[in-house]
Amino acid sequence: MTKDADELLKAASAWWSTALIDIRPGEIGIGGYPIQDLIGNLSFPQMVWLMLRGELPAPDRAKLLEAAMVAAVDHGPHAPSIAISRMAVSCGLAINGAMASAINVLDDVHGGAGQQCMELYNAIAAAEDAGAADAVEEELARFVAARGKIIPGFGHRFHPVDPRSGRLLALVESARTTGAVSGRYVRIGTAVERALERRKGSRIPMNIDGATAVIYCELGFAPELGRGLFILSRSVGILAHAWEQTRQGGRIKGPMPPAIAYRYTGPATRRPHTEGLESP
Amino acid sequence: MTKDADELLKAASAWWSTALIDIRPGEIGIGGYPIQDLIGNLSFPQMVWLMLRGELPAPDRAKLLEAAMVAAVDHGPHAPSIAISRMAVSCGLAINGAMASAINVLDDVHGGAGQQCMELYNAIAAAEDAGAADAVEEELARFVAARGKIIPGFGHRFHPVDPRSGRLLALVESARTTGAVSGRYVRIGTAVERALERRKGSRIPMNIDGATAVIYCELGFAPELGRGLFILSRSVGILAHAWEQTRQGGRIKGPMPPAIAYRYTGPATRRPHTEGLESP
Amino acid sequence: MTKDADELLKAASAWWSTALIDIRPGEIGIGGYPIQDLIGNLSFPQMVWLMLRGELPAPDRAKLLEAAMVAAVDHGPHAPSIAISRMAVSCGLAINGAMASAINVLDDVHGGAGQQCMELYNAIAAAEDAGAADAVEEELARFVAARGKIIPGFGHRFHPVDPRSGRLLALVESARTTGAVSGRYVRIGTAVERALERRKGSRIPMNIDGATAVIYCELGFAPELGRGLFILSRSVGILAHAWEQTRQGGRIKGPMPPAIAYRYTGPATRRPHTEGLESP
Amino acid sequence: MTKDADELLKAASAWWSTALIDIRPGEIGIGGYPIQDLIGNLSFPQMVWLMLRGELPAPDRAKLLEAAMVAAVDHGPHAPSIAISRMAVSCGLAINGAMASAINVLDDVHGGAGQQCMELYNAIAAAEDAGAADAVEEELARFVAARGKIIPGFGHRFHPVDPRSGRLLALVESARTTGAVSGRYVRIGTAVERALERRKGSRIPMNIDGATAVIYCELGFAPELGRGLFILSRSVGILAHAWEQTRQGGRIKGPMPPAIAYRYTGPATRRPHTEGLESP
Repeated sequence: MTKDADELLKAASAWWSTALIDIRPGEIGIGGYPIQDLIGNLSFPQMVWLMLRGELPAPDRAKLLEAAMVAAVDHGPHAPSIAISRMAVSCGLAINGAMASAINVLDDVHGGAGQQCMELYNAIAAAEDAGAADAVEEELARFVAARGKIIPGFGHRFHPVDPRSGRLLALVESARTTGAVSGRYVRIGTAVERALERRKGSRIPMNIDGATAVIYCELGFAPELGRGLFILSRSVGILAHAWEQTRQGGRIKGPMPPAIAYRYTGPATRRPHTEGLESP
Repeated sequence: MTKDADELLKAASAWWSTALIDIRPGEIGIGGYPIQDLIGNLSFPQMVWLMLRGELPAPDRAKLLEAAMVAAVDHGPHAPSIAISRMAVSCGLAINGAMASAINVLDDVHGGAGQQCMELYNAIAAAEDAGAADAVEEELARFVAARGKIIPGFGHRFHPVDPRSGRLLALVESARTTGAVSGRYVRIGTAVERALERRKGSRIPMNIDGATAVIYCELGFAPELGRGLFILSRSVGILAHAWEQTRQGGRIKGPMPPAIAYRYTGPATRRPHTEGLESP
Repeated sequence: MTKDADELLKAASAWWSTALIDIRPGEIGIGGYPIQDLIGNLSFPQMVWLMLRGELPAPDRAKLLEAAMVAAVDHGPHAPSIAISRMAVSCGLAINGAMASAINVLDDVHGGAGQQCMELYNAIAAAEDAGAADAVEEELARFVAARGKIIPGFGHRFHPVDPRSGRLLALVESARTTGAVSGRYVRIGTAVERALERRKGSRIPMNIDGATAVIYCELGFAPELGRGLFILSRSVGILAHAWEQTRQGGRIKGPMPPAIAYRYTGPATRRPHTEGLESP
Repeated sequence: MTKDADELLKAASAWWSTALIDIRPGEIGIGGYPIQDLIGNLSFPQMVWLMLRGELPAPDRAKLLEAAMVAAVDHGPHAPSIAISRMAVSCGLAINGAMASAINVLDDVHGGAGQQCMELYNAIAAAEDAGAADAVEEELARFVAARGKIIPGFGHRFHPVDPRSGRLLALVESARTTGAVSGRYVRIGTAVERALERRKGSRIPMNIDGATAVIYCELGFAPELGRGLFILSRSVGILAHAWEQTRQGGRIKGPMPPAIAYRYTGPATRRPHTEGLESP
């Protein structure tokens, strides 16, 4: 019986295992580094890198990560995530709750473009490695067949040219000349942009998701972490808008002012038990 | 050492203890009742009651609970919770995620009116029991002093008269005549309504939160559960709108159509490192 | 200019359109029915049906829906959703927040089995309609090839036989004899159970997800709503456990008591800037 | 009528107003700064500062913010937020959903200690300014009377001495000598620590929440933003654990392994309709 207890205890401990953090009374180790050796010595993006990769980055590579994270902090209240953060505050939520409701919606459609673009870039790189004749065209065709015509990372429904992309790509180019990154994914990203222009007959310029995907691929992050890094970045905007709304005040703020009616498209007035019973 | 393991095992088991449900291989007991004896025999509101109170309700009291839960299922997309549910779907979330982001905002301001109104009713009942000269006026004054001029459960920013309140109160009155409820909280609620009319000079009619608060108090629910029951009810609308939006389609649906600009109220264009550095 | 404003206003109104609810001052219509005609006349499951389907159900079909919703309210704190609800309360969240964090995790793996099982049943029904020789075997094989060996709705990691399934199927059978449902999906569900027994060599009995999937398919709900209805049901347990934890008290309740250590599997202690720098 | 439309349009635009971000086709301004001027020039903490304060920080003050944000990224799976992130992944959630359920619980108890500690420090500073005889003792007494005996920011249920606090305070001291901060809140924080030792008879050392509260107060952040900054920081750990769990795999991971039973404390087995009916 006590033997069973011992085994169950081991099971309980194994049920929760991690390589990220080791905690003992008075000691905290992050990936093996005592926390007090990291505080004040690591930049925040370096700490992000250590937590996600298990190793410390080269400083110039961490700088590139930082630039990408700075670029994506906000895109205003037309973004559902930002609007939800503000609406949540007006419903009485504290900042954690507002951030949760907002971050939750950074899903495939609203927060997944970077991840999906990284998957496309990686597929092209893999096809190149496998000796494809025209890796970009082949993988683009495969992507469109599987996922539809919207290519994540290219084009923007508001900006003719995304003001963040060019600046980010210039920083990658600069990092390439110093050897901090290989430049392979800049090449792939711009090749996709050219291929899309050929397909559509007009330029579909790389947007921030396409440019950060270039950076995250150059730095060796997994595509899922592309979404994760975007969330860390956009959380800043979500927090800032929650805070601004807190100071603005306002109660139960719906999407539109009460005076603007929505459109009702359902049945005209009727009575229950005499009208509208569904039949099996 | 094995003794320690045994003790830790007991601690683990005690860490998670519940009177709600007993599970053994092939057996599930809810408050002591085998689940198969409940399925098909209990109404959904009766099951809600059993889970929240530990005992089964008298059938006519469960009917009153059911009426209150039916009344609050939806109030359209001007409600932030409903809008968030629809926005979340357009961001790629499945129904569980959309419901989570939406239910989260049913907080003090958007989802707490019923609970707060129950607290007011209970305070009045307690003051009566303590022999107050004018329990309603005294407690109303205390409430306004502590929480401000908005009395939860009375008045509506859209409906001159809430079409749900009268029907709900008629059902309580009917239950009172059969002895299913005492009627004490109907009396208190209508006394609050009269007191507010005296204070404001015009009628501030009881709304759905005030009427469901009457019912939940008559049935003996704790105020916190007033919020909980409202959430169970409104979850139906949140789910239905998520599902309607799923079928409507649409991507990244912000609060307003893209063509309607929000108002920017910040600083004019400037340059970093030369302008706007905060001084310590 | 004013013409533009008018058009934008129409766009704003169209941006939010719904057939579910029509609200005018003093009037609320649900699918065309004045809300006061529904309160006290509709059961809660009938209201759920109206909101999700747009029409009122036959009473005996609503009873079957009710039985399924009653069956799934809780399965104890080993379920992550229930545990999260309790943990959230111990972190200071009100009931809405605890319910949100919990409902959020009712995703594909923890809350999607019913939906996936309905998809399998529907695929079998469609194959039958298309004249398949052995629709059950063919669709099972296709399902396993696409999604792996776990067949949602069958088998249980804790119960040798799920005590809820038999009772639910008996209610469907009873509804079949009165003509309330066709019985087609009972037949399909039990055929899947037999096929699995042949494949595995031992019985993999239908669990609650398989049985509620039978009911929801018999009643004509879309698979996505299988998940939605499960969430409405399990929300009762999530609320009840949040409330029990509120009364139990406790602060910052992690998954295991503090005295049980988790297992650290990462690097031994090291120093930054001298050890472990990743190389590009 | 068109006049009305115009007014409504203005109302819609005003309903959503912000000083944070100005977006025009091809242009994004953050607090007036073109985004391309910020990318690659601002550190991530400087961007956080700009978004939350509207102005750019002095570099050495941003460094202090960075140290505080680095310090709080993780405290392992005993923290409910971290555990929830991992459990959510095992339920099928993508990273955004796991982060949302986890961040949501960083509420008053689990995520509010820093904010509450800042409120205490600020109250002491205000009492000093008002000429209190012993501001620390008076405000501590007031705090205990209003909120109970646990003083947020001091003591730790696991660490005898928090390894993060001393390092953070050393960095503040260093910043004080260069004039980057005034040092007022270091003085207040250490005075609170001494006062607690006098009250309790043994040392209750400042923990990470107390030390980051010193920093955030020195830098002039509002207490609510103390919670916000903690969330930005802890989000890194929440993301890293979600990602580690994704790679570990595992399905429907509850708080304890299935073999460890929870404790059932409810009624013994009984039958509905004959036993346990509540009486009105």
